[in-house]
Amino acid sequence: MLKIALGQIEVIPGRPDLNTGRMLSMIAEARKEQADMIIFPEMSIPGYLLGDIWEQQAYLRDCEAFGREVISAAQHICVIFGNVAINWEKRGDDGRVRKHNACFIAQNGRLIGTRIKTLHPNYREFDDTRHFFSLRKLALERKQDIETLLEPVKVIIKGEEYNLGCIICEDGWNDDYSVDPIAALTADGRSDLLINISSSPFTLGKNNKRNRVFSKQAQEAGIPLIYVNNTGLQNNGKTVYTFDGFSTVYNSNGQIIAYCQPFTEKLEYIQLDIAAGGQSLGPVNVPDDFTIDSLHQCISYGVKKFLQAINMNKVVIGVSGGIDSAVCAALYASILNPADILLVNMPSRFNSQTTKDLSYQLAQNLGCLYTVMPIEQSVEHTAAQISDARITDLSSGRQNKLAVSSFVLENIQARDRSSRLLAGIAAAFGGGFTCNANKSELTVGYSTLYGDQAGFLAALADLWKHQVYQLAQYLNTSIFRREVIPQATIDLVPSAELSFDQSVDEGKGDPIMYAYHDYLYRAFMEYWNRTTPEDILAWYSQGSELLEQKLGCAPGLVDKLFPGPRQFVEDLERWWRLYTGMGVAKRIQAPPVLAVSRRAYGFDHREAQNSVYFTQEYIKLKNRLLSETLG
Amino acid sequence: MLKIALGQIEVIPGRPDLNTGRMLSMIAEARKEQADMIIFPEMSIPGYLLGDIWEQQAYLRDCEAFGREVISAAQHICVIFGNVAINWEKRGDDGRVRKHNACFIAQNGRLIGTRIKTLHPNYREFDDTRHFFSLRKLALERKQDIETLLEPVKVIIKGEEYNLGCIICEDGWNDDYSVDPIAALTADGRSDLLINISSSPFTLGKNNKRNRVFSKQAQEAGIPLIYVNNTGLQNNGKTVYTFDGFSTVYNSNGQIIAYCQPFTEKLEYIQLDIAAGGQSLGPVNVPDDFTIDSLHQCISYGVKKFLQAINMNKVVIGVSGGIDSAVCAALYASILNPADILLVNMPSRFNSQTTKDLSYQLAQNLGCLYTVMPIEQSVEHTAAQISDARITDLSSGRQNKLAVSSFVLENIQARDRSSRLLAGIAAAFGGGFTCNANKSELTVGYSTLYGDQAGFLAALADLWKHQVYQLAQYLNTSIFRREVIPQATIDLVPSAELSFDQSVDEGKGDPIMYAYHDYLYRAFMEYWNRTTPEDILAWYSQGSELLEQKLGCAPGLVDKLFPGPRQFVEDLERWWRLYTGMGVAKRIQAPPVLAVSRRAYGFDHREAQNSVYFTQEYIKLKNRLLSETLG
Repeated sequence: MLKIALGQIEVIPGRPDLNTGRMLSMIAEARKEQADMIIFPEMSIPGYLLGDIWEQQAYLRDCEAFGREVISAAQHICVIFGNVAINWEKRGDDGRVRKHNACFIAQNGRLIGTRIKTLHPNYREFDDTRHFFSLRKLALERKQDIETLLEPVKVIIKGEEYNLGCIICEDGWNDDYSVDPIAALTADGRSDLLINISSSPFTLGKNNKRNRVFSKQAQEAGIPLIYVNNTGLQNNGKTVYTFDGFSTVYNSNGQIIAYCQPFTEKLEYIQLDIAAGGQSLGPVNVPDDFTIDSLHQCISYGVKKFLQAINMNKVVIGVSGGIDSAVCAALYASILNPADILLVNMPSRFNSQTTKDLSYQLAQNLGCLYTVMPIEQSVEHTAAQISDARITDLSSGRQNKLAVSSFVLENIQARDRSSRLLAGIAAAFGGGFTCNANKSELTVGYSTLYGDQAGFLAALADLWKHQVYQLAQYLNTSIFRREVIPQATIDLVPSAELSFDQSVDEGKGDPIMYAYHDYLYRAFMEYWNRTTPEDILAWYSQGSELLEQKLGCAPGLVDKLFPGPRQFVEDLERWWRLYTGMGVAKRIQAPPVLAVSRRAYGFDHREAQNSVYFTQEYIKLKNRLLSETLG
Repeated sequence: MLKIALGQIEVIPGRPDLNTGRMLSMIAEARKEQADMIIFPEMSIPGYLLGDIWEQQAYLRDCEAFGREVISAAQHICVIFGNVAINWEKRGDDGRVRKHNACFIAQNGRLIGTRIKTLHPNYREFDDTRHFFSLRKLALERKQDIETLLEPVKVIIKGEEYNLGCIICEDGWNDDYSVDPIAALTADGRSDLLINISSSPFTLGKNNKRNRVFSKQAQEAGIPLIYVNNTGLQNNGKTVYTFDGFSTVYNSNGQIIAYCQPFTEKLEYIQLDIAAGGQSLGPVNVPDDFTIDSLHQCISYGVKKFLQAINMNKVVIGVSGGIDSAVCAALYASILNPADILLVNMPSRFNSQTTKDLSYQLAQNLGCLYTVMPIEQSVEHTAAQISDARITDLSSGRQNKLAVSSFVLENIQARDRSSRLLAGIAAAFGGGFTCNANKSELTVGYSTLYGDQAGFLAALADLWKHQVYQLAQYLNTSIFRREVIPQATIDLVPSAELSFDQSVDEGKGDPIMYAYHDYLYRAFMEYWNRTTPEDILAWYSQGSELLEQKLGCAPGLVDKLFPGPRQFVEDLERWWRLYTGMGVAKRIQAPPVLAVSRRAYGFDHREAQNSVYFTQEYIKLKNRLLSETLG
């Protein structure tokens, strides 16, 4: 029977000093509790998402030194942790010193084993292949089988020998690889216990899948499996990821016998009878993580940790009376002191009394700081200054003037609010201002650059509009337990209110029909095999039901929205053009996005400012469809 | 004797239709000229930097179809081209359909060979490992030697058999890999000719190195080598790369016997006596590409192609009288019609008569459109609106006001110019406005977000300040051949003129001392093994001469600038904090940067918004140095 401590620490990326400090105190505590072994996550010393800091040799030496401290502290306890392993004699493919993403096993103050990661993910947000040399590459270099290179680590605890099959994160997700590290480590009963140290970002629903996959692994190997993941927040600039921890122990039947509370730094103990496969412990229930609770937990944790990370404790939020800014305000109000939140309503002549009142009501419900700063005067000044200015052609001496169209004026208003007012107010208030954009807007660039797209963090920008509404209901019902977001805001037609054509009182609003477009955009953006107009049109041409089923939107919607193929095609092309055209240009300059879904904008949605393109098959299909309609 | 056509086409990324069209017409032309073979670059059909478009199966099918068209066109000529090769039966590591970066060889309307890329770069801006399955992975999967999988393609031309050693780009840059594709292909005289198809972005000085490396390869193999690269512009969102083409033929002595003009779409012919190793042709001189000519050519080509790509033909440039905006204006004036360039001077009370006059003089010299729009009134309005607004605490009913400090006012001015005026003017003018930032500013975030950091493209943001001055001189001397950028602008102290503390007339200006900091920042940012304060302080502690030598700045500078270690350390930490702190936050929202150097900001400078960090060794070194000074 071994007493094993799961060191689910909050890893601060780029702070090996702080991480090592917390690891040392957890080791001391576990030792006091007479634990036999303590396990920390992947890259627990350096952090995982560090950008190109891996190219700094000084940082590598620093992490090595901290690693030695942890190894020295492994007294009367076996310590397993993640760190970068450096082979100073060899080079990586980039010619820099060779680095491995590694698992270290220490005992009696000495290193007794190092295992390097075999499978390096290079999809989604993962960037292992850029920095680290995998066991796959090593096998090729040495002309050896990977299976030969993979072997368990032997440790002796209380006189008993245990063979630990140590793997790192992706090694446990080998479905699409030609190599199976777990099979290699567990063949012929070579291992007594599987240990997977991970640094695995939260995405909605991922733990449900992880529990299915890892349960099966434990069961197939017939030995227990311990998964240890970190908590905290890490980012790669454009995208901010939360780490939920949710460390879990599976017995040899594949049952979950223990887990750590998600999104909580935790030192958890388990008494594991390894010889009996941990079967003496009964199964426990783990929370489903494809729920609005999970989504809210991720966003709330993410915003809190991001504010801590950038040392910000005051925010300014532009509130329009609409749903996005209201949800943003309520979210921040559930995290910060209301006196540190300043809500600003900035009406122009196009804003209805309805939305002005709703802004005030929201602020009252939350008890925040509130002010109203109209933009009418400044927008008029800007429009006049631009249209009155004399433009001189210095080659001919001719003078001319510029005209400010109503479309130009719409964007002037949006920038006036954000870049002129909110940015100035935030600086004077000593904080930052939020970006309230949602994922639907960001997909098609339905926002103004340096206007409503600006801010220090886009906390809702990985939520489709319908998810923003779900979150609004959840905040009222489950977090505040009262109507902080006015029901009228939830019921209001979504509108930018930048012209009289967008009057909410007349029920006019956004050109985006969220009930359908949310799902269309999601198919463009989130599907593993990305959907294009060719796919959409092929489905549509086989019947609206098929399309609705493929997109996951409400049945009957498509024919209701589009009288015929001509209108359908027009709509499809309009949004595809925006998604792959102006949307890209705007996203390049967008704020960091807090990730919730399987694919958020930023590093995991690589895109170039290239031409809008329709495939040849699309064009054929469209021509056929439209000529049939005419015929 | 073979007549070989080098199809140095301009590849438009994401436009297989246009690329195929140009390839087909070049094939037709080469056939008319009785060429025996035509060679196109890597990924000549789909383009190379496409972000995640590779995840769209419709796009893949489209590229396959265009590939078939090119193969069919290979009549009476052997056609070699780059395209994506898809194995619809197999999966990549990401579970998506397996894709290879491949070279296709076609003859008599049929495909006679496909060769896939062995080495996949994952450093710098390259992203091959994310999307493509390499020959290295294939070898591992099949448990075969790479050397066995690599074999020349046999073609019969005019009754003679030729063995073509076809490789793709990185395969020719194998220095740091354990695999050498060229050695494998040329062992025992297996190949008669090496063909390297590439899609290789320009960086200053790269061709000099390429010529050394490839000359040696041809010489060692004892056979000729043909390198074909594309021209055009491709980007990955944050960073914009030019492709110079510069296709080159080396004979078996390693001599360059032909090349295509860089940055020019070209169909070039060479008569190559393969049996004689191409030695009948004498060496030709190629231009050195580590020069200001090259730098200017890259930037000028890049800006021109970027404007074409985004379909923009009018620009607005904010001109301050300073060097960056003047160089930007002159650059655009060398590309666009002066009547399509609107220069706007936006003075506040802090702007000197000197710089106002210099702005006008610049505009006159260039014969552009010009206007002056003062920002005094709007800035005052904004400051008053913010400081007059009553902020109500809705939980207590208390009212408060905000104070606008002089620092807050500086940034209000910068945003007023860009987000309020330039963005509005550009929209009214029907164009975009430029970002005039240089690399030194961008490194330490010495600019205002949504202010002078904004714009549709940052054309100078990969040039250190001293390179901006070099470009200024070059534009006057070699492009315009007259003083378009006023000499007084070149002589002026660089200043933001956002307060009276930055008065140019009093010789006050930026806190950045470019003669030293340009080189310090470059060491942080560009060096292959990234320099940190630990390295800098270690060099400094061994003597200022060593430091100056390592940084490449002028000798004697360090001791002149810093009376002692305390001042040196203070300066070092100040800029490191900004580079790794606020600079990161600002760069996340920066415009696309046009790349010139070996490392530009953006995709090849991955960074996270993490804590500022100093290694333990740095702290020890600093404490020792400062205590010695005190002692």
